[in-house]
Amino acid sequence: LDYQHVQVPFEITLWIMLASLAKIGFHLYNKLPSVVPESCLLIFVGLIMGGIIYGLNDRSPPVMDSDIFFLYLLPPIVLDAGYFMPSRPFFENIGTILLYAVVGTIWNVFGIGFSLYGICQVKAFRLQDVSLLHNLLFGSLIAAVDPVAVLAVFEEIHVNEKLHILVFGESLLNDAVTVVLYKLFRSFCEMPTIKSVDVFAGVGKFFVVGLGGVLVGLSFGFTAAFTTRFTKDIRVIEPLFVFLYSYLSYLTAEMFHLSGIVAIISCAMGMKRYVEANISLKSHTTVKYFMKMWSSVSDTLIFIFLGVSTIGENHEWNWPYICFTVIFCLIWRALGVLVLTFFVNRFHVNTITSKDQFIIAYGGLRGAICFSLVFLLPDFHRKKLFIAATTVVILFTVFVQGMTIRPLVDLLAVKRKRESAPTVGEQIHIRFLDHLLAGIEDISGHWGQYYWKDKLEYFNSKYLQKILLREYDQPKSSIVLLYEKLERKHAIELAQAGQLGHGPTHPSFLCSAFLCSNSDRTVITDQKLEDTLNPDVLDNMQEILARNLYRIRRTGPAYNRHTLPGDSEPTEQAKEILILCHKNL
Amino acid sequence: LDYQHVQVPFEITLWIMLASLAKIGFHLYNKLPSVVPESCLLIFVGLIMGGIIYGLNDRSPPVMDSDIFFLYLLPPIVLDAGYFMPSRPFFENIGTILLYAVVGTIWNVFGIGFSLYGICQVKAFRLQDVSLLHNLLFGSLIAAVDPVAVLAVFEEIHVNEKLHILVFGESLLNDAVTVVLYKLFRSFCEMPTIKSVDVFAGVGKFFVVGLGGVLVGLSFGFTAAFTTRFTKDIRVIEPLFVFLYSYLSYLTAEMFHLSGIVAIISCAMGMKRYVEANISLKSHTTVKYFMKMWSSVSDTLIFIFLGVSTIGENHEWNWPYICFTVIFCLIWRALGVLVLTFFVNRFHVNTITSKDQFIIAYGGLRGAICFSLVFLLPDFHRKKLFIAATTVVILFTVFVQGMTIRPLVDLLAVKRKRESAPTVGEQIHIRFLDHLLAGIEDISGHWGQYYWKDKLEYFNSKYLQKILLREYDQPKSSIVLLYEKLERKHAIELAQAGQLGHGPTHPSFLCSAFLCSNSDRTVITDQKLEDTLNPDVLDNMQEILARNLYRIRRTGPAYNRHTLPGDSEPTEQAKEILILCHKNL
Repeated sequence: LDYQHVQVPFEITLWIMLASLAKIGFHLYNKLPSVVPESCLLIFVGLIMGGIIYGLNDRSPPVMDSDIFFLYLLPPIVLDAGYFMPSRPFFENIGTILLYAVVGTIWNVFGIGFSLYGICQVKAFRLQDVSLLHNLLFGSLIAAVDPVAVLAVFEEIHVNEKLHILVFGESLLNDAVTVVLYKLFRSFCEMPTIKSVDVFAGVGKFFVVGLGGVLVGLSFGFTAAFTTRFTKDIRVIEPLFVFLYSYLSYLTAEMFHLSGIVAIISCAMGMKRYVEANISLKSHTTVKYFMKMWSSVSDTLIFIFLGVSTIGENHEWNWPYICFTVIFCLIWRALGVLVLTFFVNRFHVNTITSKDQFIIAYGGLRGAICFSLVFLLPDFHRKKLFIAATTVVILFTVFVQGMTIRPLVDLLAVKRKRESAPTVGEQIHIRFLDHLLAGIEDISGHWGQYYWKDKLEYFNSKYLQKILLREYDQPKSSIVLLYEKLERKHAIELAQAGQLGHGPTHPSFLCSAFLCSNSDRTVITDQKLEDTLNPDVLDNMQEILARNLYRIRRTGPAYNRHTLPGDSEPTEQAKEILILCHKNL
Repeated sequence: LDYQHVQVPFEITLWIMLASLAKIGFHLYNKLPSVVPESCLLIFVGLIMGGIIYGLNDRSPPVMDSDIFFLYLLPPIVLDAGYFMPSRPFFENIGTILLYAVVGTIWNVFGIGFSLYGICQVKAFRLQDVSLLHNLLFGSLIAAVDPVAVLAVFEEIHVNEKLHILVFGESLLNDAVTVVLYKLFRSFCEMPTIKSVDVFAGVGKFFVVGLGGVLVGLSFGFTAAFTTRFTKDIRVIEPLFVFLYSYLSYLTAEMFHLSGIVAIISCAMGMKRYVEANISLKSHTTVKYFMKMWSSVSDTLIFIFLGVSTIGENHEWNWPYICFTVIFCLIWRALGVLVLTFFVNRFHVNTITSKDQFIIAYGGLRGAICFSLVFLLPDFHRKKLFIAATTVVILFTVFVQGMTIRPLVDLLAVKRKRESAPTVGEQIHIRFLDHLLAGIEDISGHWGQYYWKDKLEYFNSKYLQKILLREYDQPKSSIVLLYEKLERKHAIELAQAGQLGHGPTHPSFLCSAFLCSNSDRTVITDQKLEDTLNPDVLDNMQEILARNLYRIRRTGPAYNRHTLPGDSEPTEQAKEILILCHKNL
């Protein structure tokens, strides 16, 4: 037996296997996932695992390594989030999202930091040795909403698109703020005196870290798109480039102390449009599927490790500090959301309702990022207290808030995500309105959102597409593309409807047989072709074409990270067709 | 700048990126890959890279780590080979393959070892300090044909299926022999005296290592199939299990000193049938695509690293030893193939022609496995000589033999792979003959290949399928499955034919529009449906259905590791349909 030799890959594979099997286990019982969020169940599994390891070895189980988390587990999740980000609602609400992410996070950091410092002044609590800077440092790591935790909970409750993007977008973009503040306070803690220059440098760093991340991400994204121009003869490595360039953008940003999360999101959003046009359909399926798979596994591992790392002797328990941390996290977030939304609502026609505000405040879950950051703190005598407080806040938000948010959404009757995708009519009108508003903004001299969108679209079709797309000389109108997509989908559905019936006398089989026979007739036999060109038939065709275009199915983006869009759809639609056939018979 | 922090993943990503970009580069110029095999080009890139590193640092570039090779680079390639192994020719020739792999490899090891020992006795060569055991040890690592190198060359020359599987199967299965002999001689080298018991133990180990690998592989394969029974609600992690279980089988086998290659091949071949039936179509595309992608990248990296590792000061040059090694490798392999084939041909009706024998002998390429094994040798004073000889043999076989084998195949007019897949008629006849032969063998009391195949098939449908498949109660006849597959493909093709025309007056657009209109009519309007049930139409339908089944396309297995089967086909067929439409108009 030579275990040493294979230990590293063997243990990694086993952990991934455990995570995957745990996931299968939950889904075997349909009731469990509908009541408890998966994240809670996974933490629970992790707690049990940690307990077993602790019991057997009689020492603390290994905690999640911060390097492993930031270098290997986080990127797949953020890449998935960025790649499947619904860009329209994101850019429509970018102002609000940035306000929450930047101002909101700063508000929370200072709010929590100063109030905890206040608590530390109470002599009875015996916390006087925790300085203001340490409290602010703690505030900077505990204040940020965690994208992994938010995604895990929000994708299960299906709130409306705007609400989802507000919370989720904030959780992603606050990374830049967290990085800056955390590093700032950490270096302040080690400095003997703090000059006002340092504080100003810190403010300047916000822009560098955020915008630098965007720049790094976009440049890698465009390089990726440009590379896929040349993969026509070697389709099989196409998916690789999507992953490689995204990961490089993340690592490069981290290397320069920029925001890796912002970089990978910009990279994914920048490349998506061009890469999808360049790579083959099968490569695209692979990219989508693998991204989902990877992020799903990462996310499972993170929650299990969170559970495992909780067990052990890393904690220093201090009731007042820990309880007040939880309370301040809740209060300052609620206050921040209220105040910021008040300003946002003054400048917007589509206001954020008070129900939405409640869900935004309540959905401020903390997760593995805080946890990794607290372990990265330099050693000082109260580190274990901070670890305990962070653990409690994470468990409280994930378990209590995560489990109650679904009943609350039901109770408050928060507006849900619309089930049906927009019809083609709606889509055409939306596009028409975009053009119109861009025109109005241009005439009125107001350089708003639509004006910039229009300019960007012009720049894209004029320059970017020509450089980044392989077949830039054939710009298809999106309505033609949509029709082609529908046509292809419809054809597959019909073939699959045929699959449902096994005998030749089954109606669905007849349908598809008829389909085949007719198409064959069109292609092969002459006599029938003349029928096809009959003006009557042509009229009929046009009418059905129009109807076809009307009967549009789901084309909108899907949020759920654990199932691919339209995964179960085809069979349902095939059934629908079958039922229609039956009725007609 | 914090490079230390991201160094490991950053450098790995950059190496993979370099490999992928090199691959794209070769395919940009169509003429290059048709003359020089990709493996040679990649080694060449590696040599240049190594030269640059050597020139800049003035010390040897890092050699390929044997652990990295065996733990991370080799498994994806072998998994891909096993998963896409054409099982029929493999099992039909399993006896011959095993003969070549076991007896042939032993023949080569001892032949090369003893003759090199003879060379060492010549005083003028100054090699008298190389003992017989060391020569045998060297023979055990240099004798084995390398699957990676063989695959890289043979998939480009398209020889007939039997010839391909003989060389490729041998290169895979000789791993068990190589593992045993290499470890045996290495331990003998370190032992003071060798007893005859040790030699017998070595012989017994053959069976343990080989059969143990098969057992480990099959048990992991069946577990994988069993696991995918329960993934219906969580499709997105299905592909993961294929990779995880295969990798675990490899690692487990390596852990117990069994043959990892044999294990992973058994695992892949064992699970394939059941996993494919259990997982969704999209998951299956992802599995296939990712396997190809991964093995393609691994293979690229291996050849680049081979090139890089060649440069440096690891070599001790001794003309006679190195030249004689190359000569003996060629001679002993040629002799072995001749002698073994003589025996094989006496017992087979389908004999191996002398042309085939020449290609089998000539196709005995050496590659990265030898290279990794020679670096794993314990330190002794002539290790650098062995490294030099191994490097020369690898470069000679890959460059000289690899580059000349294609012209030789052309010159000798070796029977090529048939381009067209077998028709349904042929397939039905083959199956019929199988049943017939199984019956004849049963009656005549001869327990041959067909008898066992039949028994295995019975066992499979009676027990294995019920345990491992999700919907075992619906066994579909394979002809129905084939028809469904064709139907689905046809539907997609028609939709894509529609894609080629952009205006509504274009004939292909009309075809697909007609297709849609008809299917819609069938589904929705009553009046048309009655037409459908007209007996005339039904007859017509049946006729076209029959023709449809006749017009079968590629269903056979494809060998090429770098393109997925049927990758470029749909568009070609769509064009064909378009041309037909044009003609008819």
